[in-house]
Amino acid sequence: MNSSAPIGVFDSGVGGLTVVREIMRQIPNEQIIYFGDTARVPYGSKSRKTVTRYSEQIVRFLRQQDVKAIVAACNTASAYALDEIEKEIDIPVIGVIRPGAKTAMDVTRNGRIGVIGTEATIGSGIYARYIKEQNTEMEVLGKACPLLVPLVEEGLLNDPVTDEIALRYLSSLIDSGIDTLILGCTHYPLIRATIGKVMGGHVTLVNPAYETARELRELLEGAHMLNQSKPELGDNRYQFFVSDGADKFIRFANSIIKYGVLSAKVVNIEEY
Amino acid sequence: MNSSAPIGVFDSGVGGLTVVREIMRQIPNEQIIYFGDTARVPYGSKSRKTVTRYSEQIVRFLRQQDVKAIVAACNTASAYALDEIEKEIDIPVIGVIRPGAKTAMDVTRNGRIGVIGTEATIGSGIYARYIKEQNTEMEVLGKACPLLVPLVEEGLLNDPVTDEIALRYLSSLIDSGIDTLILGCTHYPLIRATIGKVMGGHVTLVNPAYETARELRELLEGAHMLNQSKPELGDNRYQFFVSDGADKFIRFANSIIKYGVLSAKVVNIEEY
Repeated sequence: MNSSAPIGVFDSGVGGLTVVREIMRQIPNEQIIYFGDTARVPYGSKSRKTVTRYSEQIVRFLRQQDVKAIVAACNTASAYALDEIEKEIDIPVIGVIRPGAKTAMDVTRNGRIGVIGTEATIGSGIYARYIKEQNTEMEVLGKACPLLVPLVEEGLLNDPVTDEIALRYLSSLIDSGIDTLILGCTHYPLIRATIGKVMGGHVTLVNPAYETARELRELLEGAHMLNQSKPELGDNRYQFFVSDGADKFIRFANSIIKYGVLSAKVVNIEEY
Repeated sequence: MNSSAPIGVFDSGVGGLTVVREIMRQIPNEQIIYFGDTARVPYGSKSRKTVTRYSEQIVRFLRQQDVKAIVAACNTASAYALDEIEKEIDIPVIGVIRPGAKTAMDVTRNGRIGVIGTEATIGSGIYARYIKEQNTEMEVLGKACPLLVPLVEEGLLNDPVTDEIALRYLSSLIDSGIDTLILGCTHYPLIRATIGKVMGGHVTLVNPAYETARELRELLEGAHMLNQSKPELGDNRYQFFVSDGADKFIRFANSIIKYGVLSAKVVNIEEY
């Protein structure tokens, strides 16, 4: 595999761009091909079987773009489909669950970790399973927060309604005495301030995006697959593909990442 | 076409069951085959091209079940795809837009009609276009309310958060002096009380589901296609198909319609 090949990153929609942002920061020499499944978003309320089928179609699309590694930048896809994807392909694949879980375990002092995410991610119990495999002493409390994604997508980032909904979802976690909270959905870093205010300053918020980008860098480094030369500007350094609504995607993308996203191509992902 | 054949009804998910409920009430002799596209829900934030492709796939599926007529029980699908569907098939197809618009025109006294719906339905301008084609004197004001569907699906039917969001969306319509408001999304009848409270008693709320079932009955009557005999119980009178999450669908369905929904079959709609 060519070390100058791009990295493939996918998500159910726009949330995975918070992971792209971290990859751009931490390994700026890498080219990225992003796919957002905006025609079938959201994944978080759908079944394992459906999310796995969708993820497999996207992986087939990304393979055709000759990526050297794939990042499932979506907690639901990571929770449901990562094992299946790993079985099928011969390039490195990483999800966002393990990096987030590892960071939380490093950070917690009292061993009580909270996780918030979609119905699917929380229902899968994957964060708790992974953490307890490493350390049976840890306690993990999950809470599904289905309204937070639509509130973020509607732009209510600093809004009393979002505060109120966050408070309802988080109050059981506050009462349980956790000292660490994993933001187990790629949309949540965008309302990090709200979540932090509701949880209080003594709770550390873990954004798996940061740790995912770090794990990706280490993985590529270990395999001698880091891009050695800085790509030229205009070299298709960052390419964006979606299954629907390119214009809307471009608007949202430019609110998340600094690199000017000028275009996105629409792909009929059902054909893969 | 056999008059004892079933009627096909489809929606992006569960919302169309409010139309099914009306059809069951008004023409109880009819058999119904319902399809809810729960693997790709919601439609209201997606593009015309994508919603049309999805609707065409569902119509192909319903045709294979030998339905005698099709109801697009989804405002977004009716707004974007009805013309295309009508071109392609030789059985009657009705949507929810025209029935809702006609009722609103009958009901209004001051000629100022409001419409609320998804981004797609409101963005298409179809309610305004249809009403103005009939009567250029009428004024039509649309407002997209993207958060109302997730709030309904999260079960916040009588909740201060839903009141607050409804008030924000509806305040410009209140100020504009409309006397009639079309509930232009099949989820909205489920929060009719909230919307009525916010709008005030002088504004008539129009639920297109009622009028759609009436138009369907008249259409079948005119074509001598009403089912003449009462179907036997256990005769597969009502059949439900979804593209994902049958159990979740069954739970929601039983909260909307009185007929006990015991089963739903999962169909891979991308194959149609």
